Amino acid sequence: MTRGFYIGRFQPYHNGHHTMVERIAADGEVDELVLGIGSAGNSHTVHDPFTAGERIMMVTNAVAEFDLPTYVVPIEDLDRHSVWVSHVQSMSPGFDLAYSNNPLVIQLFEEAGIEVRQSRMFDRERLEGSEIRERIIEGEQWRDRVPDVVVEVIEECNGVERLRTISQSDIVERWEATNGGCE
Amino acid sequence: MTRGFYIGRFQPYHNGHHTMVERIAADGEVDELVLGIGSAGNSHTVHDPFTAGERIMMVTNAVAEFDLPTYVVPIEDLDRHSVWVSHVQSMSPGFDLAYSNNPLVIQLFEEAGIEVRQSRMFDRERLEGSEIRERIIEGEQWRDRVPDVVVEVIEECNGVERLRTISQSDIVERWEATNGGCE
Amino acid sequence: MTRGFYIGRFQPYHNGHHTMVERIAADGEVDELVLGIGSAGNSHTVHDPFTAGERIMMVTNAVAEFDLPTYVVPIEDLDRHSVWVSHVQSMSPGFDLAYSNNPLVIQLFEEAGIEVRQSRMFDRERLEGSEIRERIIEGEQWRDRVPDVVVEVIEECNGVERLRTISQSDIVERWEATNGGCE
Amino acid sequence: MTRGFYIGRFQPYHNGHHTMVERIAADGEVDELVLGIGSAGNSHTVHDPFTAGERIMMVTNAVAEFDLPTYVVPIEDLDRHSVWVSHVQSMSPGFDLAYSNNPLVIQLFEEAGIEVRQSRMFDRERLEGSEIRERIIEGEQWRDRVPDVVVEVIEECNGVERLRTISQSDIVERWEATNGGCE
Amino acid sequence: MTRGFYIGRFQPYHNGHHTMVERIAADGEVDELVLGIGSAGNSHTVHDPFTAGERIMMVTNAVAEFDLPTYVVPIEDLDRHSVWVSHVQSMSPGFDLAYSNNPLVIQLFEEAGIEVRQSRMFDRERLEGSEIRERIIEGEQWRDRVPDVVVEVIEECNGVERLRTISQSDIVERWEATNGGCE
Amino acid sequence: MTRGFYIGRFQPYHNGHHTMVERIAADGEVDELVLGIGSAGNSHTVHDPFTAGERIMMVTNAVAEFDLPTYVVPIEDLDRHSVWVSHVQSMSPGFDLAYSNNPLVIQLFEEAGIEVRQSRMFDRERLEGSEIRERIIEGEQWRDRVPDVVVEVIEECNGVERLRTISQSDIVERWEATNGGCE
Repeated sequence: MTRGFYIGRFQPYHNGHHTMVERIAADGEVDELVLGIGSAGNSHTVHDPFTAGERIMMVTNAVAEFDLPTYVVPIEDLDRHSVWVSHVQSMSPGFDLAYSNNPLVIQLFEEAGIEVRQSRMFDRERLEGSEIRERIIEGEQWRDRVPDVVVEVIEECNGVERLRTISQSDIVERWEATNGGCE
Repeated sequence: MTRGFYIGRFQPYHNGHHTMVERIAADGEVDELVLGIGSAGNSHTVHDPFTAGERIMMVTNAVAEFDLPTYVVPIEDLDRHSVWVSHVQSMSPGFDLAYSNNPLVIQLFEEAGIEVRQSRMFDRERLEGSEIRERIIEGEQWRDRVPDVVVEVIEECNGVERLRTISQSDIVERWEATNGGCE
Repeated sequence: MTRGFYIGRFQPYHNGHHTMVERIAADGEVDELVLGIGSAGNSHTVHDPFTAGERIMMVTNAVAEFDLPTYVVPIEDLDRHSVWVSHVQSMSPGFDLAYSNNPLVIQLFEEAGIEVRQSRMFDRERLEGSEIRERIIEGEQWRDRVPDVVVEVIEECNGVERLRTISQSDIVERWEATNGGCE
Repeated sequence: MTRGFYIGRFQPYHNGHHTMVERIAADGEVDELVLGIGSAGNSHTVHDPFTAGERIMMVTNAVAEFDLPTYVVPIEDLDRHSVWVSHVQSMSPGFDLAYSNNPLVIQLFEEAGIEVRQSRMFDRERLEGSEIRERIIEGEQWRDRVPDVVVEVIEECNGVERLRTISQSDIVERWEATNGGCE
Repeated sequence: MTRGFYIGRFQPYHNGHHTMVERIAADGEVDELVLGIGSAGNSHTVHDPFTAGERIMMVTNAVAEFDLPTYVVPIEDLDRHSVWVSHVQSMSPGFDLAYSNNPLVIQLFEEAGIEVRQSRMFDRERLEGSEIRERIIEGEQWRDRVPDVVVEVIEECNGVERLRTISQSDIVERWEATNGGCE
Repeated sequence: MTRGFYIGRFQPYHNGHHTMVERIAADGEVDELVLGIGSAGNSHTVHDPFTAGERIMMVTNAVAEFDLPTYVVPIEDLDRHSVWVSHVQSMSPGFDLAYSNNPLVIQLFEEAGIEVRQSRMFDRERLEGSEIRERIIEGEQWRDRVPDVVVEVIEECNGVERLRTISQSDIVERWEATNGGCE
């Protein structure tokens, strides 16, 4: 039996992630997949708007359609790169290979002797998340970029309003950084 | 839709826990159940021998037999009782009622206005865990007290040997405490 | 009896804050007011130059002139937004409504079901703090922007010199960020 | 102007503490007194049942009767004795001498060159706290051992019930420790 | 080149540790030795009276007499056994084998695939530390149980007085635990 | 006997640091020197690529050529400026004066009453570190800017490759910051 590990912040889980999981399921390379929810303790910022609980709902419901047994595991940050792999390994069911396009993640896993599969798309998932959050804030169309179950979770937690309100804190901080001169 | 929350350290997940989940599934009181794995960051002590990843395997595999959708969520300690309920709520899919026999857990949930169902057995699950760990250490029979899938997980991670080795640290500490006089 | 809660970093406590407290005292909406000193563990940076102890002195002495019973409570950061409200509630005497213009604070309190009064001035207090710190660093006039007792506290702790010295660290960091290329 | 510093956990603030503050006020040795609430982040245990906010209420209301300006400051634990004095100094208005009977507190302050006044009663305040908590749990008389305002705070937060419920967790833990053999 | 790793709390460094290092130096099994000072952040308790800095002095000066290149490295606790080995590896020069009699340390290193040499003496070093601390407190003879340079460090930091003063806190805590009933 | 303290992040230890230590050794102002490795817990970022263990190797091997007894001590961040000096003092052998050009370090030491010697070069060591890291990333010449033993350590840990890989994470983050709009 082979188990894979795929980590993301999933803020939110979107079609880029979904395609990635679909391919992993189709490739037949692994029999089971662990989906690690990174920065699990973060929420209520523009960079990380959703709680771990909300993201567990998104991911669990979205991947249910694939014929691949999965585990969805929140991973809190320890803020110490040198122990990150051990931390992930202790929080997750054992895995044989990892999927990631994040250079830091790749470096850390490879220094620990864990095989990493990179996907073809250069960090597309990650950038996509950033764009979706901006679209939500700006009132542009975003619902077509995430699975339907993700739309439901975001609406149930009033995620659109939360993201817009929080982004105003960011605007003030940026104004300070630019004009306040000393921050 | 009603979702319940049942938290335990699951060190290991045993028949007492299993009976509890079985009843929840049979009662039909909830449509979904979140199983929170408490003290998720602890491992490799006599009190908490197994990692969160190992316990996720135990719980996920064991509850698969019930006809009840479940989420298995590790919850790391924040070491601050006053924010524990908020922490649990942010790490877990939303829930409507909690199951617990632990007086502290009951107190914290009730102060936060969350309904708690206590089961009939006074803390039997918890004491059972302690006894099973002792039986593993002492080489007595323990496999009949946990679901078969839990035996598999414990054997796969060499849990018996781990527990026995670690318990020797405990013996020394207790010797120090009793005879060393000043600790 | 109604108690209000007003949180700020108070770096330093200035006329904007003072006007806000004056209005709260005049409105008669609350019988008592808790002043929460945010990011209480931070000090010795350009963004947060003063210690909690120094800020307690500023705030306590400044609000003494109003005919409103107050509590001044330092609140250390937990770096986890999802439990921030619970944390504040455990550190503070119980309160019935909160005063804030910070969108994140408003969002967090409202998600927790706590009523928030926003004042008319869009984040003026906050920006004012940033400008006062810059004026102190640049050697411009700042004493007319804070209550007299705040001037005293800043002078007693050599705050002007501290802020100027520390701002040189910032200059180096910014030079690095701009020219060093890789930071 | 001379300012004193008196630290305690105040779980709860009782007549022993009150007598101590009364004497400090009567001695005229200090012009102002800071009351530091130790282990401010702890609550909901038998050893530390009350939150910092509840204890701020107890102390502030109780010392109001003395003719001595006071500051009531919660101090969270950093769990590192070597920096404890610096931590206290940064969280508190500056002070010239400290009052304590706790040998560790005395040692830490003296290593840092801060003068400590010990009172005549050998740790009576501290033991008194332990006994009061036990009396609350056992349903014995305790109200005559604390100032009236403290009774009010404890009743308002349902402290009696909280302490009794929590003490049941303790009973189980002690049973485990004694009989479970391996904890 | 082969490098070994030997960890202890060294509270204080004593003849048992010294004999261990002497043998490692004599065996010629390793070309260099890292001495890890465990629980480096702890100090000012009966269990851990000395700071990391004081212990660095003890160890560095004591091992100077052996003809073996050494590194003395304080290791702060992360309070998470599952990442302890990674933590140690990141804080220390790379090592090829470890020396320990502590069952937990042995277990953690072996799970991580690191070879551990156990010495013949069952945990003698550790118990010896406990006894020496007690002798210091009780005013019995202890100087013949540690290298001379360790005596110097302890005297220079007034360690005898520190340990005795701190032990009085312990006495009170034990009295509470036994008689107070509820702690 | 006089002991000095010189702190840096040493990412990596380079000729600027080396010249500084050389001068301290030549001046004869101190009999021993402690080299504190700051931000010891950080690694695997462009700002802090090397682990504490790798930096201990760099510094220890480099300063061996001087005729000055040294201690090399990793210092983990506590993220609280107000206790930083106490933290450093507890982790380090006692010292009588400090060497630094960092304005924040100077401010903190001077507020604590510790004498600081500033060197003539305005923060040259620090900027040099930034430039060396960039040169490693860009494939430009850097080996002539660090002692030979530092080249060896960096090559042994595959530091060049590590830094290049990690810098790609940075590029993505900066792209997000500039174009993503909302981060």
